[in-house]
Amino acid sequence: MSYTVLDKVNALKDLKALSREEIRVLTDEVRQVLIQKISATGGHFGPNLGMVEATVALHYVFNSPVDKFVFDVSHQSYAHKILTGRKEAFINPEKYKTVSGYTTPEESEHDFFKVGHTSTSISLACGLAKGRDVQGANENIIAIIGDGSLSGGEAYEGLNNAAELNSNFIVLVNDNEMSIAENHGGLYKNLAKLRETEGKAENNFFKALGFDYYYVKDGNNVDELIETLEKVKDIDHPVVVHMHTVKGKGYVDAETNKENFHWVMPFNLETKEPLMKMGATETYRGITEDFLLEKAKNDPTVVVINAATPAITGVNKVRRELEKQYVDVGIAEEHAIAMTSGMAKRGAKPVVGFASTFIQRTYDQLSQDLALNNNPAVILVTGGGISGSDETHLGIFDIPLISNIPNMVYLAPTTKEEHLGMMEWAIEQTERPVAIRIPNMDVVSTGEKVEANFGDLNKYVTTIKGNEVAIIGLGSFYHLGKKVHDKLQEIGINATLINPRFITGVDEALLTSLQKDHKLVITLEDGILDGGFGEKIARFYGSTDMKVLNFGATKEFTDSVPLAELQERYHLTEALIIEDIQKALNK
Amino acid sequence: MSYTVLDKVNALKDLKALSREEIRVLTDEVRQVLIQKISATGGHFGPNLGMVEATVALHYVFNSPVDKFVFDVSHQSYAHKILTGRKEAFINPEKYKTVSGYTTPEESEHDFFKVGHTSTSISLACGLAKGRDVQGANENIIAIIGDGSLSGGEAYEGLNNAAELNSNFIVLVNDNEMSIAENHGGLYKNLAKLRETEGKAENNFFKALGFDYYYVKDGNNVDELIETLEKVKDIDHPVVVHMHTVKGKGYVDAETNKENFHWVMPFNLETKEPLMKMGATETYRGITEDFLLEKAKNDPTVVVINAATPAITGVNKVRRELEKQYVDVGIAEEHAIAMTSGMAKRGAKPVVGFASTFIQRTYDQLSQDLALNNNPAVILVTGGGISGSDETHLGIFDIPLISNIPNMVYLAPTTKEEHLGMMEWAIEQTERPVAIRIPNMDVVSTGEKVEANFGDLNKYVTTIKGNEVAIIGLGSFYHLGKKVHDKLQEIGINATLINPRFITGVDEALLTSLQKDHKLVITLEDGILDGGFGEKIARFYGSTDMKVLNFGATKEFTDSVPLAELQERYHLTEALIIEDIQKALNK
Repeated sequence: MSYTVLDKVNALKDLKALSREEIRVLTDEVRQVLIQKISATGGHFGPNLGMVEATVALHYVFNSPVDKFVFDVSHQSYAHKILTGRKEAFINPEKYKTVSGYTTPEESEHDFFKVGHTSTSISLACGLAKGRDVQGANENIIAIIGDGSLSGGEAYEGLNNAAELNSNFIVLVNDNEMSIAENHGGLYKNLAKLRETEGKAENNFFKALGFDYYYVKDGNNVDELIETLEKVKDIDHPVVVHMHTVKGKGYVDAETNKENFHWVMPFNLETKEPLMKMGATETYRGITEDFLLEKAKNDPTVVVINAATPAITGVNKVRRELEKQYVDVGIAEEHAIAMTSGMAKRGAKPVVGFASTFIQRTYDQLSQDLALNNNPAVILVTGGGISGSDETHLGIFDIPLISNIPNMVYLAPTTKEEHLGMMEWAIEQTERPVAIRIPNMDVVSTGEKVEANFGDLNKYVTTIKGNEVAIIGLGSFYHLGKKVHDKLQEIGINATLINPRFITGVDEALLTSLQKDHKLVITLEDGILDGGFGEKIARFYGSTDMKVLNFGATKEFTDSVPLAELQERYHLTEALIIEDIQKALNK
Repeated sequence: MSYTVLDKVNALKDLKALSREEIRVLTDEVRQVLIQKISATGGHFGPNLGMVEATVALHYVFNSPVDKFVFDVSHQSYAHKILTGRKEAFINPEKYKTVSGYTTPEESEHDFFKVGHTSTSISLACGLAKGRDVQGANENIIAIIGDGSLSGGEAYEGLNNAAELNSNFIVLVNDNEMSIAENHGGLYKNLAKLRETEGKAENNFFKALGFDYYYVKDGNNVDELIETLEKVKDIDHPVVVHMHTVKGKGYVDAETNKENFHWVMPFNLETKEPLMKMGATETYRGITEDFLLEKAKNDPTVVVINAATPAITGVNKVRRELEKQYVDVGIAEEHAIAMTSGMAKRGAKPVVGFASTFIQRTYDQLSQDLALNNNPAVILVTGGGISGSDETHLGIFDIPLISNIPNMVYLAPTTKEEHLGMMEWAIEQTERPVAIRIPNMDVVSTGEKVEANFGDLNKYVTTIKGNEVAIIGLGSFYHLGKKVHDKLQEIGINATLINPRFITGVDEALLTSLQKDHKLVITLEDGILDGGFGEKIARFYGSTDMKVLNFGATKEFTDSVPLAELQERYHLTEALIIEDIQKALNK
């Protein structure tokens, strides 16, 4: 495919030499490239389409990488990538996989940070600005942030502090009237008023925080953008440029169904059919959604809370059907946990859902607001486990994070029935905060109901009684443990198999009893070893003759490494585990 | 001592029966009690004095505990305690120690949460409000928050979300123009304008977030307060009452020197002399301050960052002498870490100081904004260790929190010279983020300079070579290890003593070499065992014949338990450690 203007834009200087007419053509062509590429590979669709004109205008007006752009979440940085030497990765299907879905300095000197979580760009950019100032330099620093990300506390802390810079600092607010889902919070009424009044509303949030302020009515009009950006270029104080864009701009389905087109699976542009068939099979998300909906329908005090990711945390059905029992706090994980603690204190039954990677955003609230107060809130953790994820969304850190906080009970179900039993118990008990790590795998169902009683804390269950070797398989890795058990049987070892159920504690009686006729205990956990579950077992047996082998992930950030490769690397295949067991037994 | 009005106020109904004149007398008497008690015991002085009238007015107008007050940080809740059945603990010196310095439901039904960290009251109260709403109740929910706490992201997230409540919700903003130190951030200019205009300024921050708004000009005038609170009582939507108070009101020294009187050590009210002599001896804080000041003076790119606690994090000298190289971000730990990462990226040398208990507020930023990006920022952690602290300020969780994040290097100096060497190295290296756990103990100085070279990661140092038993003493507990070593010698065991220096990794070569002639390795760490340092050693040796004993704190919140009692409980005395060693060796 050939492009009239894009073909001749190979460096930023080429862009700067274009006429305004050519620039308008360029934006159309970049948009076509994005639609082609993202529909083929999947990825963040709506956010990138809305940012095309602004990205072109930014690079036209400013001088990257001397002037520095910091993209919030950075899932809207694709046009930026196309314009800064990474065009081939978007045009040539064979090179599609050569770029990250986020900014990364490893790819380009025009990217300054690896970013994948929201609400960070203002703070990071504020650091660049302060670093610039103490070195006596004077480039422009531009933080780019979506309206959705502005609900996050880090963004606010950044705005509040950056307002004190007595130097150049530009925040470009990309207001597309959406988070992943609809926006939630008082701020968004303010943004709406600012849009209605073209920036002239009373009580301007940004001005209240001390920023100078410009409004761009059509953030998909490159001329209007260039005009405003020229005005703020080389400004000597902090300024917000608030532009109104259309999420999904230029692709009708994305404009009309913004939430579904925030992030897409690969699809055929002509037929609009998905390229990969999603199974109609049962998922843990579906099971969770059905359970929560039923539970909430029957009990008006059950409240489902979620931080701007209803689809991935299994709360969409409650969201659609039970408005009063659903709270989306926006991108505000800290508030979500503290509020949940308050609800539980007041006698409601709150259930909050988080992706493993986002529970990281709320450690102190888990500890102080919730666990210290021992309020009976329920936290559902999805996506916890070793995966081929990009490095900004790994799900391997939730076990050390949650399980080393006193009073927290963190449960690891192994089957559908156990998950249901644990949710039921967690919601109905009134003693303590309980988190549940929803298995990150295909559903396993035994058909046998599990009693909703987990009040006898840290009681592990021996599912197969054997000797010599005991396998403790945590949560989703229980099934790996079963496979290892069966393989061991083939070589004459009748191993014991244990479902610990509790991540947060050690069953001292059971572990002690194993000493009678076992030489080796192995632990299997679907997460990082450091600070995790297995190490507690190793500590328990430290001064005994029992040998312990811990299996799990190494402490490292892995970036889109295929799962199979990680399983080899971490010895998480049956064959490698058996090998390690034999070594430990000197067999 | 007898009090005209306070003596007859034994329950809230007595307060409600008072005349306005009696109420004014009551506030004077409560203030006298507070001055007497806090000067004798030490504690939060200024915050409590400023809140006397507001507390009396709140209890006069509202009906606690049906109506519910949530105090932010809760170090300003003493008048509330006096009025809700805990008077004796403030009047009778023998009972001074029977109340916590913070709110706690264990003390009274008028306290709803244990709180000691800032910026949480709005979120917690928002949860109470939602819990109320789904149960169809209609009491008043009142969050009380100081201006300083409003810089924290959690407070903003709470405001943003609470604005969406379609029901009663009252936020009382206690604006005393101060955080612990001076306020920082654009918000504070807005508060100043609101004070100047008696609430009529354009761009009202609270209105911008969607709140109704009332201003109380003199928040130390009980009549004015009662009048406004009567107006907002039973209101059916979220409202902010912004009152201007004087921090330290009624005690001249505290009014004029607000920062020093935020929290006081016990002092004699007449002579104003401290009751306890502070030694003029060297402290790690002093050493750190002197080093940072010298470093910053000689290098304009060294920037010291701090989140509203300059005195406790050893950065006061830089703050006073080098304005441009000092950043106080306000109570905004998340922003502090992200900004620090940005500064390091831009070639500056940022050093940020945190108390151990507050680093909890910034896990995701440590992981995503900093460690994932591997920027060479330096983090100094103070107050890390087992102590008799109240349960909201324990310093035992920083090791699991920091050390299980990939790329982070967390160092544990054992002496003054090692601390200086580590700071020097950490600031000058350009490879990675480095945190340093400043020993929480009296200074130990060897007089021998330690080379500023810690680039050979996870290299432990054997300081005494022995056999049979190896003692790995981490940071401040190295010295406990030395004592254990010496005691062991007395009973014929020549133990090896090791200073690991690195919290974040295992010296595999050294640990392997110990297997030759050692049977037992013990680890000593000044923090929680779960997810900590010792467990990594236990895991390393899991499949070997080496026995391992880990010493440290149990996973629990302890509330002002004397250190000596904790040392007994956790077997952290020489005698108990020796006993455990002998047991493990079957001696």
